[in-house]
Amino acid sequence: MATKGKVLTLTEVNPMVRCIPTSKTDILVRRAGEITRELEQGAVKPFPDVIIVSSGDSHGAGMQPITFVRQVMAACLYPELLHSDRLPSDVRQRAQRLLGECEGSSVGSYSCPLGLDAVRRSVAESLQRRDGGVISDSDNIFIQSGSHVALMRVLKVLLHGEGVSQTGVLVPVPCHPRFTQAVWALGGVPLPFQLSEERGWVLEREELQRALRDARGRCSPRALYFVNPGNPTGHVQSRESIEEVIRLAAEESLFLLVDEVYQQTVFGVDREFVSYKKVLCEMGPPYSSTVQLASVHSVSKGFMGESGLRCGYVEFMNLDPQVKKHISSIVAKEGCAPIIGQIALDIMAAPPQPGDASYTTFRAVRSPCTQPPGQERQASLDTLAHNVRRVQETADGLPGVSYQPPQGGITIFLRLHLSHRAVEQAKALGLEPDLFYCMRLLEEEGVCAGPGCDLGQREGTYHLRLCILMPTDSLEEMLRRLKSFHHRFMQDFC
Amino acid sequence: MATKGKVLTLTEVNPMVRCIPTSKTDILVRRAGEITRELEQGAVKPFPDVIIVSSGDSHGAGMQPITFVRQVMAACLYPELLHSDRLPSDVRQRAQRLLGECEGSSVGSYSCPLGLDAVRRSVAESLQRRDGGVISDSDNIFIQSGSHVALMRVLKVLLHGEGVSQTGVLVPVPCHPRFTQAVWALGGVPLPFQLSEERGWVLEREELQRALRDARGRCSPRALYFVNPGNPTGHVQSRESIEEVIRLAAEESLFLLVDEVYQQTVFGVDREFVSYKKVLCEMGPPYSSTVQLASVHSVSKGFMGESGLRCGYVEFMNLDPQVKKHISSIVAKEGCAPIIGQIALDIMAAPPQPGDASYTTFRAVRSPCTQPPGQERQASLDTLAHNVRRVQETADGLPGVSYQPPQGGITIFLRLHLSHRAVEQAKALGLEPDLFYCMRLLEEEGVCAGPGCDLGQREGTYHLRLCILMPTDSLEEMLRRLKSFHHRFMQDFC
Repeated sequence: MATKGKVLTLTEVNPMVRCIPTSKTDILVRRAGEITRELEQGAVKPFPDVIIVSSGDSHGAGMQPITFVRQVMAACLYPELLHSDRLPSDVRQRAQRLLGECEGSSVGSYSCPLGLDAVRRSVAESLQRRDGGVISDSDNIFIQSGSHVALMRVLKVLLHGEGVSQTGVLVPVPCHPRFTQAVWALGGVPLPFQLSEERGWVLEREELQRALRDARGRCSPRALYFVNPGNPTGHVQSRESIEEVIRLAAEESLFLLVDEVYQQTVFGVDREFVSYKKVLCEMGPPYSSTVQLASVHSVSKGFMGESGLRCGYVEFMNLDPQVKKHISSIVAKEGCAPIIGQIALDIMAAPPQPGDASYTTFRAVRSPCTQPPGQERQASLDTLAHNVRRVQETADGLPGVSYQPPQGGITIFLRLHLSHRAVEQAKALGLEPDLFYCMRLLEEEGVCAGPGCDLGQREGTYHLRLCILMPTDSLEEMLRRLKSFHHRFMQDFC
Repeated sequence: MATKGKVLTLTEVNPMVRCIPTSKTDILVRRAGEITRELEQGAVKPFPDVIIVSSGDSHGAGMQPITFVRQVMAACLYPELLHSDRLPSDVRQRAQRLLGECEGSSVGSYSCPLGLDAVRRSVAESLQRRDGGVISDSDNIFIQSGSHVALMRVLKVLLHGEGVSQTGVLVPVPCHPRFTQAVWALGGVPLPFQLSEERGWVLEREELQRALRDARGRCSPRALYFVNPGNPTGHVQSRESIEEVIRLAAEESLFLLVDEVYQQTVFGVDREFVSYKKVLCEMGPPYSSTVQLASVHSVSKGFMGESGLRCGYVEFMNLDPQVKKHISSIVAKEGCAPIIGQIALDIMAAPPQPGDASYTTFRAVRSPCTQPPGQERQASLDTLAHNVRRVQETADGLPGVSYQPPQGGITIFLRLHLSHRAVEQAKALGLEPDLFYCMRLLEEEGVCAGPGCDLGQREGTYHLRLCILMPTDSLEEMLRRLKSFHHRFMQDFC
């Protein structure tokens, strides 16, 4: 008998998979893991640990969970706790009610693939409150294993065609690379459009139109993706800008995919989050009856930061019922989101209210900030606003660093004005200059930041993405290391 | 300004998505949901509730969770519980240890995309114990959001090509439709091969070879999928049969994809589960060094039945390191499995041992069976074996029903010998005969079972799939209704 050797070798890997570029941040994060292991094994380095600011994982960075959320989830998992006086009455009531919604009264059972009906209703009610009464129908809310999974399932249905009929998707630059990679992997063509750094990362209609013109003859633009509040830009879009996007979507027949996961973290003075859905509804017909919108949100971001639970949702507007059936059927084949995550989503949608037993704790627990918390603002938002201020103060003292003050989100995107020598040195090593900067920052100070080359940037500009929803003491230590490194780096390559 | 109307209409849906057939079981499950709502709204029907036996969701069917599992997860979510004497010492130790493995000591943080290192090591150690010392390396274990997700990610890398070079995947018949649909959706060609019902659903080499011959000129067969213990057949494959499959895989250069999620639920006399990996290793070179294998398992099945947590894993053997990198990178883009599910997986891999504080409870809680539990066998397995016996006893008394006694898994696949009149009546309604049977069973008795047409069967044969890991009282009620319906149905169409 002859064996033919291994069937799946590199040359036999699906070429669509093979051509997906490796993210530079992934390389840095892998190296950060190695350094941590080296430190654990006793290696001597100029720093005691690695601080990761390349990922928006706030619990990983040391932020504390919300007690109410955790108590309800613990009681759902171990219902013995329902009989304990140690948990507040509203925790027990909520857990009891949610368990009653689970098949077999167990979070170990599957839910309907689109999520628990009761949680979908909670989400719809919260969106209706958010949007000042604009109707939200729970039938249009699909609970998924996170906002990215939700977006990918919409893309799966939306993307098709070959050659000039291949689906093009307008994608802002800069933008987290995960979305662009998903468009490639699912057979679409990302169509980048540049945000205006000089004007505070605003979206410019002319640039969108330029991107559409460039796409002609190359593919068929059928969707526009946007992130508001922006990641990594921290820009919060104005109502007027959203209206402009919606008008363009109507004129050009574009499906709107909107990532609104940072809707609860807006801290800019005179800025508030306005949802695409609210604006679209308020624009009235023909817009409100024709423009198709998918907006995602997640328990991973904002004040809860429960990334490890893997749960989010998408809300659709103007989705064709037949298309909805196809998306539902894709979702059904891949199964429901984790039930514990759905429980967390219910709490995100309907947190304790004044008068509830947990309300005081709920507020107190959300005060990890060393600054006195404002009466009206969420305490985690205070920490974030404080951190943003501290990063800006530090950046103001760094030569060759500029930034656009962020108004929301959990990131700040610093521009690095690197010297010719630094750029040449990086190129000699075959590295993008900001990746070169990040690699040295990691090796010399144990700080893992995201290089701008991973997110897209105008040629000849270089950036650093920092995720800063973290305890203030960790932030100070990170800033101390960054400052020390930056001065050294600039001196080395002056 | 002119708006062009909706962009995403049915005709614009990705044709690959549009052509995925709707599963008949999904139609039945949807109808079951409607009936439940009708009952809740006061509709009068000949039954008080719907019993679902079409899905392998044991908690949904009323099976109880394992206390130790739930206590550890609750303590991880709400670490205040670590200071409570109400939880056994080994629960607190386990939770403390696992929390220490999480970034920021929180299950709300992300893990590495392949899973928590400590849990991957636990799994590797458990597999090494299972396989009598055959080496398992945690580097080859990728933790994923369930066994199906794990399989799909392997398929994503494996499937490619067009026309005759399009990847063919051998798929047993009968088989859960989800896998076949995933092959279609990811651009492969399922190549069905029929299992021999007459011989107890064994796999026949000649039939596999027939399927390969038929594929020539149509596509390139590059993988073979098998489920052991079988779903829905309940067949447990012998070592000799596994060896035969491995030899064929070597000769024909096929990647082996093995679903071994029912490995802990074998109850047939003189039958034991032997893993593909163990057999492959024991066959020695060239097999053990060339045949590529991916085997999946999950916390959803077996004695834990924690489907709602969404966690499983794949273990690779002989995977090319470069290919592994590509699979890792796909996984990285879609994020880690839920951390709470990973905690459950750790417990599945390393349950309490004799001497541990929870050991007695662990055993006692696993005794929901009304039969006295055997000293050596797991109690949930006793329930299952009892249920299998009861279904067989009932089936023996039903005219026109035959079956092959299952030896493992959680399903029984009954053959329905329907009358010519029943078949004609179904066809007149445009329905497959066993779907017709299932629809009437659901409407008349509130029992939702899986029709054989969804799983594949020899032409002219009809079947019923029942998932029977459920409390014995629910099983008895289901059998009572099935019996009553079946007699009526056979009489109506005699």
